Amino acid sequence: MKEIIAVIRMNKTNAMKRALVEAGVAGFTAAKVLGRGKLVEDPAVIAERKERLLALAGDEVEPAETEQLVDGFLDGSRLFPRRLFTIMAYDGDVPRIVDAIMQANRTTNKVGDGKIFVLPVLDAVRVRTGEAGDAAL
Amino acid sequence: MKEIIAVIRMNKTNAMKRALVEAGVAGFTAAKVLGRGKLVEDPAVIAERKERLLALAGDEVEPAETEQLVDGFLDGSRLFPRRLFTIMAYDGDVPRIVDAIMQANRTTNKVGDGKIFVLPVLDAVRVRTGEAGDAAL
Amino acid sequence: MKEIIAVIRMNKTNAMKRALVEAGVAGFTAAKVLGRGKLVEDPAVIAERKERLLALAGDEVEPAETEQLVDGFLDGSRLFPRRLFTIMAYDGDVPRIVDAIMQANRTTNKVGDGKIFVLPVLDAVRVRTGEAGDAAL
Repeated sequence: MKEIIAVIRMNKTNAMKRALVEAGVAGFTAAKVLGRGKLVEDPAVIAERKERLLALAGDEVEPAETEQLVDGFLDGSRLFPRRLFTIMAYDGDVPRIVDAIMQANRTTNKVGDGKIFVLPVLDAVRVRTGEAGDAAL
Repeated sequence: MKEIIAVIRMNKTNAMKRALVEAGVAGFTAAKVLGRGKLVEDPAVIAERKERLLALAGDEVEPAETEQLVDGFLDGSRLFPRRLFTIMAYDGDVPRIVDAIMQANRTTNKVGDGKIFVLPVLDAVRVRTGEAGDAAL
Repeated sequence: MKEIIAVIRMNKTNAMKRALVEAGVAGFTAAKVLGRGKLVEDPAVIAERKERLLALAGDEVEPAETEQLVDGFLDGSRLFPRRLFTIMAYDGDVPRIVDAIMQANRTTNKVGDGKIFVLPVLDAVRVRTGEAGDAAL
């Protein structure tokens, strides 16, 4: 048995839910967390993104404030709301579920579609019946 | 050392807390998540439950709205608030704690009492002292 | 690959974030949970703490109410808001990250600085590219 943890975009919650139900997933939980992905370290990439973000911000906010916000974004000191799903799965179903999660969460954006992690689970128990192991899922 | 994850009914939070304290559990956390259990696939069971749920709903809401809600419930596309407990435990205490969780969370309902999962933990560290392993629990 | 779980004080969230970014951590999530640490069992320690807490409470609230609150605190039946961080890390980075977490979260308080747990992770996948294993972090 495995625990599949997926950290995805907030606005993909419904697509994710549907994908999991269609994939026949037994049970899962969803929670709101704050998260941050990998830092960009290439100064050229940072400079280019900064310019793009400043352009996007336009004149609606104070330039100094915008720059502070953009720096906060680019140096990774800001956290963003993310949706964390936890799915318990039979070993044999893991590749199919991981595929379904990728299908449901891919966008055309360059970064931020999320990550999936697979952890070992030693045992499961259904509270009502006391059934253990694979039978409890 | 093991991580025990239990997903239970919201209204069992206090009973669960008391059971864990009485079982001598070292530390635990509780969070609110949205969750969904196993899907019912037998059409006969679905039909019977649908009838029961529609009867329960009575005439207080629009029949069409009720039916939509009931379908959403039965096809698993709705998530419900659940309480997720995470308990860190010594290997030898796991069976006793799992028993305590089952005792505290069993109801006379047919489904929804929750599930318990046991995951391996490689190490623990107490921040204040730097103690590691079993001594840190 | 490992999952590092750290349960810390709420007011250490920013210090923790900065420490993780400085340690070059690839990605992490933060969530608010309710938690409780190890129970104090020594009656002498309990009595001494109770006296101290009652003195701190002063006359601002009803003595009976204070005593109830203090008992709730000391017998572990109350949960406190805690920040739970989840960090995914390469095996070789774990000791450095654990050190950074300890540095950022140590206070002069006697208890409550938090705990760190290390769990095994079998695999990771980046949703956008499908990269797996260490390359996905």
